[in-house]
Amino acid sequence: MNDDEKTIRGVAATWIAATKRGDLETVLDLMEEDVVFLVPGAEPFGKTAFAEASREMTAGGMTIDGESEVLEVKILGDWAFMTTRLRIKASRPGAPEMVRAGHSLTILHKRDGRWRLARDANLLAPAKTSHD
Amino acid sequence: MNDDEKTIRGVAATWIAATKRGDLETVLDLMEEDVVFLVPGAEPFGKTAFAEASREMTAGGMTIDGESEVLEVKILGDWAFMTTRLRIKASRPGAPEMVRAGHSLTILHKRDGRWRLARDANLLAPAKTSHD
Repeated sequence: MNDDEKTIRGVAATWIAATKRGDLETVLDLMEEDVVFLVPGAEPFGKTAFAEASREMTAGGMTIDGESEVLEVKILGDWAFMTTRLRIKASRPGAPEMVRAGHSLTILHKRDGRWRLARDANLLAPAKTSHD
Repeated sequence: MNDDEKTIRGVAATWIAATKRGDLETVLDLMEEDVVFLVPGAEPFGKTAFAEASREMTAGGMTIDGESEVLEVKILGDWAFMTTRLRIKASRPGAPEMVRAGHSLTILHKRDGRWRLARDANLLAPAKTSHD
Protein backbone atom coordinates (compact mmCIF):
# COMPACT_ATOMS: atom_id res chain seq x y z
CA MET A 1 0.00 0.00 0.00
CA ASN A 2 1.58 3.33 -0.98
CA ASP A 3 1.36 6.65 0.85
CA ASP A 4 -1.51 7.96 -1.30
CA GLU A 5 -3.61 4.89 -0.56
CA LYS A 6 -2.85 5.18 3.16
CA THR A 7 -3.86 8.84 3.07
CA ILE A 8 -7.11 8.08 1.25
CA ARG A 9 -8.00 5.35 3.75
CA GLY A 10 -7.31 7.98 6.40
CA VAL A 11 -9.78 10.35 4.70
CA ALA A 12 -12.47 7.66 4.92
CA ALA A 13 -11.67 7.01 8.59
CA THR A 14 -11.60 10.70 9.46
CA TRP A 15 -14.93 11.24 7.65
CA ILE A 16 -16.81 8.62 9.66
CA ALA A 17 -15.15 9.59 12.95
CA ALA A 18 -15.96 13.28 12.45
CA THR A 19 -19.54 12.44 11.41
CA LYS A 20 -20.04 10.39 14.56
CA ARG A 21 -18.90 13.22 16.83
CA GLY A 22 -20.91 15.83 14.91
CA ASP A 23 -17.79 17.67 13.71
CA LEU A 24 -19.16 19.13 10.48
CA GLU A 25 -16.20 21.47 9.86
CA THR A 26 -13.81 18.53 9.65
CA VAL A 27 -16.14 16.71 7.25
CA LEU A 28 -16.48 19.79 5.03
CA ASP A 29 -12.69 20.16 4.93
CA LEU A 30 -12.50 16.67 3.36
CA MET A 31 -14.46 17.87 0.29
CA GLU A 32 -13.43 19.86 -2.75
CA GLU A 33 -15.38 23.10 -3.18
CA ASP A 34 -17.10 21.70 -6.29
CA VAL A 35 -17.83 18.24 -4.85
CA VAL A 36 -20.95 16.54 -6.23
CA PHE A 37 -22.98 14.05 -4.18
CA LEU A 38 -25.25 11.58 -5.94
CA VAL A 39 -27.92 9.72 -3.96
CA PRO A 40 -30.98 7.70 -5.05
CA GLY A 41 -34.21 9.61 -5.49
CA ALA A 42 -32.79 13.14 -5.42
CA GLU A 43 -30.99 15.61 -7.62
CA PRO A 44 -27.19 15.88 -7.31
CA PHE A 45 -26.13 18.35 -4.63
CA GLY A 46 -22.94 20.09 -3.49
CA LYS A 47 -21.05 21.22 -0.43
CA THR A 48 -23.47 23.98 0.64
CA ALA A 49 -26.49 21.69 0.54
CA PHE A 50 -24.53 19.00 2.39
CA ALA A 51 -23.67 21.47 5.13
CA GLU A 52 -27.25 22.77 5.40
CA ALA A 53 -28.70 19.26 5.67
CA SER A 54 -26.12 18.33 8.32
CA ARG A 55 -26.85 21.43 10.38
CA GLU A 56 -30.60 20.73 10.19
CA MET A 57 -30.07 17.17 11.40
CA THR A 58 -27.91 18.36 14.29
CA ALA A 59 -30.46 21.06 15.18
CA GLY A 60 -33.12 18.32 15.25
CA GLY A 61 -31.10 16.39 17.82
CA MET A 62 -29.96 13.69 15.41
CA THR A 63 -26.78 11.77 16.14
CA ILE A 64 -25.04 9.42 13.75
CA ASP A 65 -23.26 6.20 14.56
CA GLY A 66 -21.82 3.83 12.06
CA GLU A 67 -18.87 2.21 10.43
CA SER A 68 -17.16 2.21 7.07
CA GLU A 69 -14.95 -0.40 5.47
CA VAL A 70 -12.79 0.57 2.51
CA LEU A 71 -13.03 -2.23 -0.07
CA GLU A 72 -10.84 -0.81 -2.82
CA VAL A 73 -8.62 2.18 -3.53
CA LYS A 74 -7.22 2.81 -7.00
CA ILE A 75 -4.79 5.70 -7.48
CA LEU A 76 -4.87 7.41 -10.90
CA GLY A 77 -2.19 10.10 -10.54
CA ASP A 78 -3.74 13.06 -8.73
CA TRP A 79 -7.12 11.35 -8.85
CA ALA A 80 -8.35 8.15 -7.26
CA PHE A 81 -11.47 6.13 -6.79
CA MET A 82 -12.55 4.22 -3.72
CA THR A 83 -15.38 1.83 -2.93
CA THR A 84 -16.64 1.58 0.63
CA ARG A 85 -19.13 -0.54 2.53
CA LEU A 86 -21.13 1.58 4.98
CA ARG A 87 -23.57 1.03 7.80
CA ILE A 88 -25.09 4.11 9.41
CA LYS A 89 -27.45 4.43 12.38
CA ALA A 90 -29.26 7.74 12.83
CA SER A 91 -30.87 8.36 16.21
CA ARG A 92 -33.07 11.18 17.43
CA PRO A 93 -34.85 11.49 20.81
CA GLY A 94 -38.34 10.01 20.64
CA ALA A 95 -37.94 8.54 17.15
CA PRO A 96 -37.11 5.00 16.05
CA GLU A 97 -33.49 4.43 15.08
CA MET A 98 -32.93 4.46 11.32
CA VAL A 99 -30.37 2.04 9.92
CA ARG A 100 -29.07 2.43 6.40
CA ALA A 101 -26.51 0.16 4.79
CA GLY A 102 -24.82 -0.25 1.45
CA HIS A 103 -21.89 0.96 -0.60
CA SER A 104 -20.41 4.13 -1.95
CA LEU A 105 -18.24 4.86 -4.97
CA THR A 106 -16.11 7.94 -4.40
CA ILE A 107 -13.79 9.95 -6.66
CA LEU A 108 -11.01 11.76 -4.81
CA HIS A 109 -8.72 14.51 -6.04
CA LYS A 110 -5.29 15.50 -4.75
CA ARG A 111 -4.80 19.25 -4.78
CA ASP A 112 -2.03 21.14 -2.94
CA GLY A 113 -0.98 17.82 -1.43
CA ARG A 114 -4.38 17.09 0.10
CA TRP A 115 -6.76 14.31 -0.96
CA ARG A 116 -10.40 15.37 -0.84
CA LEU A 117 -13.74 14.05 -2.09
CA ALA A 118 -14.65 15.24 -5.60
CA ARG A 119 -17.65 13.03 -6.50
CA ASP A 120 -19.54 10.61 -4.28
CA ALA A 121 -22.25 8.14 -5.21
CA ASN A 122 -23.93 7.02 -2.00
CA LEU A 123 -26.03 3.88 -2.46
CA LEU A 124 -27.20 3.45 1.12
CA ALA A 125 -30.65 1.91 1.44
CA PRO A 126 -32.80 1.26 4.51
CA ALA A 127 -31.56 -1.89 6.25
CA LYS A 128 -34.32 -4.25 7.33
CA THR A 129 -32.68 -5.19 10.61
CA SER A 130 -29.83 -3.99 12.76
CA HIS A 131 -27.25 -6.67 13.39
CA ASP A 132 -25.54 -4.67 16.12
CA MET B 1 -14.02 17.72 -26.47
CA ASN B 2 -11.15 15.35 -27.21
CA ASP B 3 -11.31 11.94 -28.90
CA ASP B 4 -11.38 10.02 -25.61
CA GLU B 5 -14.36 12.00 -24.38
CA LYS B 6 -16.16 11.49 -27.70
CA THR B 7 -15.48 7.76 -27.49
CA ILE B 8 -16.76 7.57 -23.91
CA ARG B 9 -19.95 9.42 -24.82
CA GLY B 10 -20.28 6.87 -27.62
CA VAL B 11 -19.98 4.04 -25.07
CA ALA B 12 -22.90 5.54 -23.11
CA ALA B 13 -24.97 5.92 -26.29
CA THR B 14 -24.18 2.41 -27.49
CA TRP B 15 -25.04 0.98 -24.06
CA ILE B 16 -28.54 2.46 -23.98
CA ALA B 17 -29.23 1.69 -27.65
CA ALA B 18 -28.14 -1.95 -27.26
CA THR B 19 -30.15 -2.29 -24.05
CA LYS B 20 -33.27 -1.02 -25.82
CA ARG B 21 -32.96 -3.53 -28.64
CA GLY B 22 -32.15 -6.39 -26.24
CA ASP B 23 -28.61 -6.83 -27.61
CA LEU B 24 -26.92 -8.22 -24.51
CA GLU B 25 -23.69 -9.23 -26.29
CA THR B 26 -23.01 -5.64 -27.28
CA VAL B 27 -23.66 -4.45 -23.72
CA LEU B 28 -21.35 -7.12 -22.26
CA ASP B 29 -18.60 -6.11 -24.68
CA LEU B 30 -18.69 -2.59 -23.17
CA MET B 31 -17.58 -3.96 -19.75
CA GLU B 32 -14.23 -5.03 -18.42
CA GLU B 33 -14.12 -8.66 -17.29
CA ASP B 34 -13.75 -7.54 -13.65
CA VAL B 35 -16.39 -4.80 -13.78
CA VAL B 36 -18.21 -4.15 -10.49
CA PHE B 37 -21.79 -2.85 -10.37
CA LEU B 38 -23.05 -1.12 -7.25
CA VAL B 39 -26.80 -0.63 -6.73
CA PRO B 40 -28.87 0.30 -3.66
CA GLY B 41 -30.08 -2.57 -1.50
CA ALA B 42 -27.91 -5.32 -2.97
CA GLU B 43 -24.39 -6.66 -2.82
CA PRO B 44 -21.95 -5.60 -5.55
CA PHE B 45 -22.08 -7.86 -8.59
CA GLY B 46 -20.07 -8.52 -11.73
CA LYS B 47 -20.38 -9.32 -15.42
CA THR B 48 -21.71 -12.87 -15.03
CA ALA B 49 -24.50 -11.81 -12.66
CA PHE B 50 -25.35 -8.87 -14.95
CA ALA B 51 -25.66 -11.25 -17.91
CA GLU B 52 -27.78 -13.75 -15.97
CA ALA B 53 -30.18 -11.07 -14.75
CA SER B 54 -30.49 -9.64 -18.28
CA ARG B 55 -31.23 -13.07 -19.77
CA GLU B 56 -33.88 -13.71 -17.11
CA MET B 57 -35.56 -10.39 -17.87
CA THR B 58 -35.56 -11.14 -21.60
CA ALA B 59 -36.91 -14.66 -20.99
CA GLY B 60 -39.71 -13.09 -18.94
CA GLY B 61 -40.70 -10.92 -21.91
CA MET B 62 -39.32 -7.70 -20.47
CA THR B 63 -38.34 -4.89 -22.78
CA ILE B 64 -36.45 -1.77 -21.82
CA ASP B 65 -36.93 1.72 -23.13
CA GLY B 66 -35.17 4.78 -21.86
CA GLU B 67 -32.72 7.55 -22.34
CA SER B 68 -29.38 8.61 -20.93
CA GLU B 69 -27.79 12.03 -20.83
CA VAL B 70 -24.08 12.32 -20.13
CA LEU B 71 -23.54 15.18 -17.66
CA GLU B 72 -19.78 15.02 -17.21
CA VAL B 73 -16.77 13.14 -18.54
CA LYS B 74 -13.35 13.53 -16.93
CA ILE B 75 -10.38 11.79 -18.55
CA LEU B 76 -7.60 10.65 -16.18
CA GLY B 77 -5.08 9.07 -18.57
CA ASP B 78 -6.24 5.52 -19.31
CA TRP B 79 -9.05 5.92 -16.79
CA ALA B 80 -12.04 8.23 -16.74
CA PHE B 81 -15.17 8.92 -14.79
CA MET B 82 -18.56 9.89 -16.12
CA THR B 83 -21.84 10.98 -14.55
CA THR B 84 -25.08 10.26 -16.36
CA ARG B 85 -28.74 11.08 -15.89
CA LEU B 86 -30.92 8.08 -16.71
CA ARG B 87 -34.59 7.33 -17.17
CA ILE B 88 -35.57 3.72 -17.82
CA LYS B 89 -38.97 2.16 -18.54
CA ALA B 90 -39.31 -1.59 -18.15
CA SER B 91 -42.35 -3.21 -19.75
CA ARG B 92 -43.63 -6.75 -19.64
CA PRO B 93 -46.91 -8.12 -21.07
CA GLY B 94 -49.69 -7.96 -18.47
CA ALA B 95 -47.67 -5.98 -15.91
CA PRO B 96 -47.64 -2.27 -15.13
CA GLU B 97 -44.78 -0.33 -16.66
CA MET B 98 -41.97 0.36 -14.20
CA VAL B 99 -40.19 3.69 -14.49
CA ARG B 100 -36.89 4.29 -12.74
CA ALA B 101 -34.92 7.51 -12.90
CA GLY B 102 -31.76 8.95 -11.42
CA HIS B 103 -28.05 9.15 -11.96
CA SER B 104 -25.03 6.93 -12.34
CA LEU B 105 -21.35 7.44 -11.58
CA THR B 106 -19.20 5.28 -13.81
CA ILE B 107 -15.47 4.55 -13.90
CA LEU B 108 -14.15 3.61 -17.34
CA HIS B 109 -10.82 2.05 -18.29
CA LYS B 110 -9.00 2.16 -21.63
CA ARG B 111 -7.31 -1.11 -22.43
CA ASP B 112 -5.97 -2.13 -25.85
CA GLY B 113 -7.43 1.10 -27.22
CA ARG B 114 -10.98 0.36 -26.07
CA TRP B 115 -12.87 2.23 -23.32
CA ARG B 116 -15.02 -0.07 -21.19
CA LEU B 117 -16.92 0.15 -17.92
CA ALA B 118 -14.83 -0.79 -14.87
CA ARG B 119 -17.08 0.32 -11.95
CA ASP B 120 -20.63 1.56 -12.06
CA ALA B 121 -22.73 3.01 -9.26
CA ASN B 122 -26.34 3.01 -10.41
CA LEU B 123 -28.57 5.24 -8.28
CA LEU B 124 -31.84 4.73 -10.14
CA ALA B 125 -34.93 4.89 -7.93
CA PRO B 126 -38.61 4.30 -8.75
CA ALA B 127 -40.00 7.40 -10.44
CA LYS B 128 -43.42 8.47 -9.20
CA THR B 129 -44.77 9.48 -12.60
CA SER B 130 -43.80 9.07 -16.23
CA HIS B 131 -43.46 12.36 -18.03
CA ASP B 132 -43.38 10.72 -21.46
